[in-house]
Amino acid sequence: MKGTVLYGPGDIRFEDRETPKITEPTDAVLRLAATCVCGSDLWPYRGLQPIERPTPMGHEYCGFVEEVGSAVKSVQPGQFVVGSFAASDNTCVHCRYGYQSSCIHREFMLRAQAPFLRVPLADGTLVSTPGGVSSDKLVPSLLAASDVLGTGWFAADAANVKPGSTVVVVGDGAVGLLGVLSAKQMGAERIIAMSRHDARQKLAREFGATDIVTERGDEGIARIKDLTKGIGADSVLECVGTQESMKQAIQSARPGGFVSYVGVPHGVELRAEQLFYTHVHLHGGPAPVRRYLPKLIDLVCNDKINPGKVFDLTLPLENVAEGYRAMDERRAIKTLLKP
Amino acid sequence: MKGTVLYGPGDIRFEDRETPKITEPTDAVLRLAATCVCGSDLWPYRGLQPIERPTPMGHEYCGFVEEVGSAVKSVQPGQFVVGSFAASDNTCVHCRYGYQSSCIHREFMLRAQAPFLRVPLADGTLVSTPGGVSSDKLVPSLLAASDVLGTGWFAADAANVKPGSTVVVVGDGAVGLLGVLSAKQMGAERIIAMSRHDARQKLAREFGATDIVTERGDEGIARIKDLTKGIGADSVLECVGTQESMKQAIQSARPGGFVSYVGVPHGVELRAEQLFYTHVHLHGGPAPVRRYLPKLIDLVCNDKINPGKVFDLTLPLENVAEGYRAMDERRAIKTLLKP
Repeated sequence: MKGTVLYGPGDIRFEDRETPKITEPTDAVLRLAATCVCGSDLWPYRGLQPIERPTPMGHEYCGFVEEVGSAVKSVQPGQFVVGSFAASDNTCVHCRYGYQSSCIHREFMLRAQAPFLRVPLADGTLVSTPGGVSSDKLVPSLLAASDVLGTGWFAADAANVKPGSTVVVVGDGAVGLLGVLSAKQMGAERIIAMSRHDARQKLAREFGATDIVTERGDEGIARIKDLTKGIGADSVLECVGTQESMKQAIQSARPGGFVSYVGVPHGVELRAEQLFYTHVHLHGGPAPVRRYLPKLIDLVCNDKINPGKVFDLTLPLENVAEGYRAMDERRAIKTLLKP
Repeated sequence: MKGTVLYGPGDIRFEDRETPKITEPTDAVLRLAATCVCGSDLWPYRGLQPIERPTPMGHEYCGFVEEVGSAVKSVQPGQFVVGSFAASDNTCVHCRYGYQSSCIHREFMLRAQAPFLRVPLADGTLVSTPGGVSSDKLVPSLLAASDVLGTGWFAADAANVKPGSTVVVVGDGAVGLLGVLSAKQMGAERIIAMSRHDARQKLAREFGATDIVTERGDEGIARIKDLTKGIGADSVLECVGTQESMKQAIQSARPGGFVSYVGVPHGVELRAEQLFYTHVHLHGGPAPVRRYLPKLIDLVCNDKINPGKVFDLTLPLENVAEGYRAMDERRAIKTLLKP
């Protein structure tokens, strides 16, 4: 088969690679219905996160079980499944506390921008759709559940969004937009999306944003204070991962408010003394998507949410390099790739 | 009257000062039954937190209302009262959320190591004992409620201590020790106190510690992991405020666990990317003692807790300089001063 490999900044190649096969009895191999490019893939693509050697890319996936190892019990060949970007056994103590992305056997997925994918710990990682089937129409939304929806949902949950909450979402990438959708599902009364990009503002409103703030930095913070009568927000979802976005998030919360951060922070330092006087709660990390997958698949399959709308560009998998370019240049929010 | 003033590192003087009087209609003036030296007073005393001019000291207090301003309704002359180190109106939006130490009218108390004290926002700040009286025996414990007990209680609450929790307390000062007591009251099953000081270990055990860890740094972290079957603690109370103690706290929690920090951090920087992968919840700040005062006064007056045991040295107020020295040299856990 051919798969996606990053050779260096801006250098994405779709090239021959070994077709994955079962190597452990707990593995499954999937034939992917769709995969995609993640905002986090852009860090190494832009050279902002160095790579040491040519690196296979992709960690979002859904599709049909092709083959399973001898120990796999919960999924069968032919079933349509979704998995998290972090493989987990779903039985260890951390998994039982709901932190499957800190599973003691965690493996981050790395090779999903390809037609076939080996998934370790299949019983713990994969969740089948009802009846093990999927319509083509649902594929984008099920694919979103694999990472960006699950991560946006965690962002809202970790920021303690409750019915009636006032919520700020920092970041208008796919995760931020699905943070808006998640906050809406959790009953937020007011959802302020920070975005200065027309198409993204429009989608944010469609997903439930009640206000759009285009200002950034100190002006953005002042605008949030204005909009919340000087109080600050109950919940702030930080969906970017830079020093500026983290500052924006922390300063936008009210004392005692909740700030979540779900994008890998790049070069972010927090001065504890400053944080201390803000009185915020801070929680984040790689999203434990597996915790939410059954619920998210249920919402998608019952047509309650349509997170697949974040994919505003669909390309054949072989055109993956253009998929990266379009996202890098912000011509696309998120690129879906069809093997 | 005479009061306590810090002139520079190690230079505490007890000298003539103006007797406080009512300056705002919302003020009360108290005749203190007792005051004390706080661990946080040692930062400027040691020159680790510079002062620009001679600085009156003290923020922990309880005693009798001497006089009230014309607008004060909730306390009357003659009543025995306790107040927080942060004066608050107890009516603003932040107070109503339980963050009185972020009150929009907050004033940090500064002149309590003296026989008389002006307390602003008396209605919001002061809580009277049942019947407005106190026995001498209860004075140390009521005084503790003013800061160290309230702060230890917040540490346990902010670290989500629940019945059955496994708790680590970093720091064996009065706040840490009362964090142990608070965790015990909240039903913690296991309370691991980190201390290498005999008298403090003994008091920690008396307050409810089930284990003592004397190791620090990486060895301390390893010991906590050992004691928790490799999992880490559900709740960690950081009661020191240094880079090392914060690292100790964060690394001692399990993924998804809760870390509180309640001492003003001094020079502590958190790398967000490291924090991200620990998956901890982080919450802290100046303790909203006022939120807890009614409950804490009730527990003290009904003899359910005896937090006054942290005072292992009692001196006449005029000997305040020796009170600082004894704590600085760790000869005393905490010094009570009698006007």
